[in-house]
Amino acid sequence: MQISIAQINPVIGDISYNTNLICETISNNKSNNNKNIKSDHKLIIFPELALSGYPPEDLLYNPTWPEQINQSLKKIQSICNKHKTHALIGHPYWVKDNINNNICINAASLISPNLSPDLSANNNTIKIIAIKTALPNYGVFDEKRYFTSYQDIKNADKICDNTFTINNTKFGVLICEDGWCLNKAKQLKEKNIDLFIQINASPFEINKHKIRHHHALNITKQTSIPLLSIQTIGGQDELIFDGGSFITDKNHNIKILSPYFKTNISDLPLDSLLQKFNNNQNNLSHNLSHNLENIYQAIILGCQDYFRKNNFTGALIGLSGGIDSAITLALATKALGKENVKAILMPSEYTSELSLECALAQIKTLGVSYANISITPIIKELKKSLSDSIKLYPESKNLALQNLQARARGLILMAESNLCGKLVLTTGNKSELAMGYATLYGDMSGAFNLIKDLYKTQVYELSKFINKKFNSQIIPNKVISRAPSAELAPNQTDQDSLPPYDILDKILIEIIENNKSINQLKNMGYNNQTIDLVISKLKFSEYKRKQSPLGIKLSKRSFGKDWRYPIALRI
Amino acid sequence: MQISIAQINPVIGDISYNTNLICETISNNKSNNNKNIKSDHKLIIFPELALSGYPPEDLLYNPTWPEQINQSLKKIQSICNKHKTHALIGHPYWVKDNINNNICINAASLISPNLSPDLSANNNTIKIIAIKTALPNYGVFDEKRYFTSYQDIKNADKICDNTFTINNTKFGVLICEDGWCLNKAKQLKEKNIDLFIQINASPFEINKHKIRHHHALNITKQTSIPLLSIQTIGGQDELIFDGGSFITDKNHNIKILSPYFKTNISDLPLDSLLQKFNNNQNNLSHNLSHNLENIYQAIILGCQDYFRKNNFTGALIGLSGGIDSAITLALATKALGKENVKAILMPSEYTSELSLECALAQIKTLGVSYANISITPIIKELKKSLSDSIKLYPESKNLALQNLQARARGLILMAESNLCGKLVLTTGNKSELAMGYATLYGDMSGAFNLIKDLYKTQVYELSKFINKKFNSQIIPNKVISRAPSAELAPNQTDQDSLPPYDILDKILIEIIENNKSINQLKNMGYNNQTIDLVISKLKFSEYKRKQSPLGIKLSKRSFGKDWRYPIALRI
Repeated sequence: MQISIAQINPVIGDISYNTNLICETISNNKSNNNKNIKSDHKLIIFPELALSGYPPEDLLYNPTWPEQINQSLKKIQSICNKHKTHALIGHPYWVKDNINNNICINAASLISPNLSPDLSANNNTIKIIAIKTALPNYGVFDEKRYFTSYQDIKNADKICDNTFTINNTKFGVLICEDGWCLNKAKQLKEKNIDLFIQINASPFEINKHKIRHHHALNITKQTSIPLLSIQTIGGQDELIFDGGSFITDKNHNIKILSPYFKTNISDLPLDSLLQKFNNNQNNLSHNLSHNLENIYQAIILGCQDYFRKNNFTGALIGLSGGIDSAITLALATKALGKENVKAILMPSEYTSELSLECALAQIKTLGVSYANISITPIIKELKKSLSDSIKLYPESKNLALQNLQARARGLILMAESNLCGKLVLTTGNKSELAMGYATLYGDMSGAFNLIKDLYKTQVYELSKFINKKFNSQIIPNKVISRAPSAELAPNQTDQDSLPPYDILDKILIEIIENNKSINQLKNMGYNNQTIDLVISKLKFSEYKRKQSPLGIKLSKRSFGKDWRYPIALRI
Repeated sequence: MQISIAQINPVIGDISYNTNLICETISNNKSNNNKNIKSDHKLIIFPELALSGYPPEDLLYNPTWPEQINQSLKKIQSICNKHKTHALIGHPYWVKDNINNNICINAASLISPNLSPDLSANNNTIKIIAIKTALPNYGVFDEKRYFTSYQDIKNADKICDNTFTINNTKFGVLICEDGWCLNKAKQLKEKNIDLFIQINASPFEINKHKIRHHHALNITKQTSIPLLSIQTIGGQDELIFDGGSFITDKNHNIKILSPYFKTNISDLPLDSLLQKFNNNQNNLSHNLSHNLENIYQAIILGCQDYFRKNNFTGALIGLSGGIDSAITLALATKALGKENVKAILMPSEYTSELSLECALAQIKTLGVSYANISITPIIKELKKSLSDSIKLYPESKNLALQNLQARARGLILMAESNLCGKLVLTTGNKSELAMGYATLYGDMSGAFNLIKDLYKTQVYELSKFINKKFNSQIIPNKVISRAPSAELAPNQTDQDSLPPYDILDKILIEIIENNKSINQLKNMGYNNQTIDLVISKLKFSEYKRKQSPLGIKLSKRSFGKDWRYPIALRI
């Protein structure tokens, strides 16, 4: 028997595109040309919610989806018939509950080829095999908003029992989080299955693959049954699906079957999957590269897919000569190609020679197009228009004039975007966004942010990594070594308003990702005043984050769906 | 026995403020001075999650909250002792599950006075009475993200059984949504309770009070037990809690005990609550006013509380001479007082005489301060700066120049805000936001939007209602009667780009609030082209809504927490 692992990249909401993608994947699959494989001895496996994309959110309320999904399954059925293959596919589905209401389930269906000589008999060869039981409703997940769990459906066992058998091999199906709870696996073990198949839409974060492996190894350890885990690939707004489909064996080893960050179809004999494989640490380390490489790949994929799925090709970046815009320009150029990226320089009277020099050097290195538009005449005109109020409120003048510069730049970038049709990438890092050290409708203006979930110290690390990776000063060394400054006032540096980034970032990680209290921070030895400043700025800037553009989730907790705070609050 | 209903307005996250508010409410309660009431014969009832405010969202992850809540309960206990009163209070709480993990519950505790002669005995008089069972996780609600349901806690009945008895009267406690499911009420009926007490944090929407009444009457009908429903009051970001605490009697009547949209403490003998009351249709109609009055009150309360809870007093509004900014100015002035509101006129070459006339007339009527800052010189300067790109992309020139004007105005408003310290109110209505007929970082720049959830036709209705209510042209009649225009191009009207608002709004309501499909809309007789245009614009403008400021939820489904769509999608 032959197993194919289809690590594909669906587009949310485009059921028709996803159906075609699945049909083409089946049609083009190598095993179709393998004369040694009998009909009915082929199985191709697609990820969780492959027909809708993940997470579909309120699109699941679309009243036409139940019928669209049915039509899609039938279309795939005809392809399975043609190629005499079985397909296991994740998709949303609607069933009646005990009071005849439609409830939505996160399901997996097996579509089998109709092997009857009389094809017109139209046997029903589409069968729901599994309904997700463990619905994640934390972090970025809201599955309980949409889906009913297997355990909450009366007589769910009459719909399916999460197993299916092909050619005397019995498979037990787990849908993503089901594989993070031992209960479900233990129940399936009692049904004498030979192999767990886990279909997933599991979003990337740093070291997330280790957590996936931990849970899979735990199931194999407890049940002595290997687990085949099929991952999704692709960027979806703030989420990246990083792939790396794998299998565990009875020796508690992991074998990576599909690459990370790439669409891939692997085609393997079942026997080879069920064998104990050699202790393949090499295989493992080969596939699980350094964190910075993972971060780089996640950003590239997230950027490419955001543009592709929104039907845009080009990006505009306001290039200041500082590190945040420099790394964004470098990443966008790698992701989209130099012909699709344009830098806009917008110097003011506070822009240093070094900034212009750095910006122009990088533009030359990368070979991107650029424009240079001074904001000085605009600021002069704005000051004139605002002169009455500036005289009236001298104490707020500095703040207002700093924001004015950032907003004039935002305005120019958006006008350029309207003119040339490229999307603006914003360039604020996580440390800035945490502290509110950014101007709403100024440097926060734009469609997407590649470094939204990178602390400032990580921006430096990744910059050095990229330069090393490409053996070139893609980000000029002078940008990396200079002191960070917003250049909105004479001789300004970030540290006039913020603690040093190496301390700030450590405190932020403890608060945002490790949920530490003030007392715990004090016990760790951080300065009381610094802690209070950080917490107060973090709280007070929530209104800015609420209006910030999306960015790629990279950490355990980003300022995205996994960060939900009220604005009007006192803590 | 005396029952007090404390319809209070907590501040999210400010446990100390909320504790003091509860303590003061107990201390100031009339029944404390009523010598006819025996000790131990007084009960004061506070709403759901009164100690934290609702919805606390991720603040529930704050590691210091369990201890803070315990301290608060002890502080309230000392006040209950002093005034010899019982208090029933909603609050989050943390208990150990069967594997010793901390789980969070949505609880209600009864704090009883220590009547022992030896006060130093320090009897534990704080007791958890109820744990919420029905956790809403739809619409604006995410309770399953945070709380564990009563039914999912092993041995929950050992913690509490949702009843308590004072002076031989047995009370059954329902927490908000628990009262929307008959099961829980039927279980409590079997415990021979005399009265249901339902504590709520139930957000306003048009006609929501009717749904609350429906469920309460249903419980009384099925159980023959009256239900006393205590509501929260106040604005919290996009949500308004509208009050109107009530009781049902055995005749299936509703009696409103506390006013809508106002903090209130009602103090009543239990006997009067348990009596059948007369068929009081009058009472009902007196309290449930016309929808437009409810909408008006909700906006006023929402505006006041957003400013108060964020420690701001003043509002800035860009006044165009059109109806959206006119109604916003009128509402803000009523909510905050004319001394706290400033209008900014920002005319351009496309601004009509009528617009200026209308704006100045309204400023005079309302008596608010204003500034007049022409954007013409700024636009001239911007065009000069952008001239290279404008020449390069002549086909996008019109779009870019229109947005430029909106963004220059946004920039001026934000600069004024930075200078004078007032918050900018944006003025886009729901129809515009649905269609993307608004400029990001332009007219969408601001902290809060009073009419975000009003369709354009509702903006007209509410304007007429307000003028009638105050018997004055608070919104000039000429603004109401003129054709709507963004005035960003010569002789422009909204209907150049959009279907007529009376048709558009009907289609939008069917899609957004009634979840109708394209085919259903066609069957209703709407024009195919119009439907396609509306759906495509609605979908394509999601990126604008994601960055839009908060606004007050008024409808069944607003563009807030109850509207969750991906940006990168194809439908």
